[in-house]
Amino acid sequence: MADFPVGELNKIRRGDRASYDRAAIHALLDEAMVAHVGFIGAGRPIVIPMIYGRVDDLLYLHGAKAARFAKAMAPGLAVCLTVTLLDGIVVGRSAFHMSMNYRSAVIHGHASLVTDGEEAERALAAITDHALPGRWSEVRPMLDKEAKATAVLRLTVEAASLKSRNGPPVDDAGDYALPIWGGTVPLGVQAGEPRDDGAGAGSAPVPESVKAFLARHKA
Amino acid sequence: MADFPVGELNKIRRGDRASYDRAAIHALLDEAMVAHVGFIGAGRPIVIPMIYGRVDDLLYLHGAKAARFAKAMAPGLAVCLTVTLLDGIVVGRSAFHMSMNYRSAVIHGHASLVTDGEEAERALAAITDHALPGRWSEVRPMLDKEAKATAVLRLTVEAASLKSRNGPPVDDAGDYALPIWGGTVPLGVQAGEPRDDGAGAGSAPVPESVKAFLARHKA
Repeated sequence: MADFPVGELNKIRRGDRASYDRAAIHALLDEAMVAHVGFIGAGRPIVIPMIYGRVDDLLYLHGAKAARFAKAMAPGLAVCLTVTLLDGIVVGRSAFHMSMNYRSAVIHGHASLVTDGEEAERALAAITDHALPGRWSEVRPMLDKEAKATAVLRLTVEAASLKSRNGPPVDDAGDYALPIWGGTVPLGVQAGEPRDDGAGAGSAPVPESVKAFLARHKA
Repeated sequence: MADFPVGELNKIRRGDRASYDRAAIHALLDEAMVAHVGFIGAGRPIVIPMIYGRVDDLLYLHGAKAARFAKAMAPGLAVCLTVTLLDGIVVGRSAFHMSMNYRSAVIHGHASLVTDGEEAERALAAITDHALPGRWSEVRPMLDKEAKATAVLRLTVEAASLKSRNGPPVDDAGDYALPIWGGTVPLGVQAGEPRDDGAGAGSAPVPESVKAFLARHKA
């Protein structure tokens, strides 16, 4: 896949941790579970957490049609969608060299309301299967009234970049002689035992989607 | 502690998941490890991940003096700083009732450059001890040239709000009879075994800061 093109919006000015690699950015968007979505409202920056779905280079957001964000974004608002995974604490021997290992993708685009029913359904499937891969095919099918109450927004990617840090601290040469520990503490997202809500009439087993998620995220 | 006042910037319009409780917002800011910081650059929203520190109602950010964000924010730029913790996947019996359990704080303010040396040091201590509590007292003291190369930004909180969701799915009444599992999958941040970088001259033991962090975050 071709890199995302580099322009004023996504050119990373400092450091050598930048990438515009499309496959790497897609993979990070797929792995992260929440995006922080920024837009401008009444002249102020607003950042809210949202779940999302990806179909190729398109990102989809959704919410209640009555919600403020949907009303604000639907007319083609400029959006910056950022996802970050923390991979570890970089424990330097000085505060100056404390850092985090992380991967972060910053996506710039404009949001627009999806009006085509089939695209909206594809988007909702992508969002559902991003929150919990495989869940779309397990749930009760969507009702017309649910589709009507849901605003689906399409974010066309204009510019995208990825920054990451990995590896041990990079301390000052003289500091390695100090009697101070240096290294990293790995971090990751961990799932716990699934909790049946106990409200079902039957005895439905833990579904494949949950089992597969646990296989990827359980200690 | 008094609640944060409710105004146009932070009034939550939908749902009953809102709070302006100062102690709860402080606690969430302390627990989260990364913030997504939004500002307006060249007319576009920009959202970047940053570590931060808190001293009472003040939030501190830092970066290289040469970095774009520090230059952009230092003159008193409007900032929205958002932190989110994902506590679980809410596995509803329909896609419409899929959700996440989460806690998120949205902070609005204006950033300004810290020029007082003592305040800058307090801020850097707060940032270091937020990334890894207790680390500031273990590291080699900061050098003058390091302080000079570091931009510290103060974010005065103008408005703050907290939203959260907790608990099982809230499915349609009729859906509980379906043979579909409903419940939650708990999520949390997990630390792995600390990795000594093996580059120290001596044999420094794993420090108290790392041990305490692991006690809180290890399976």
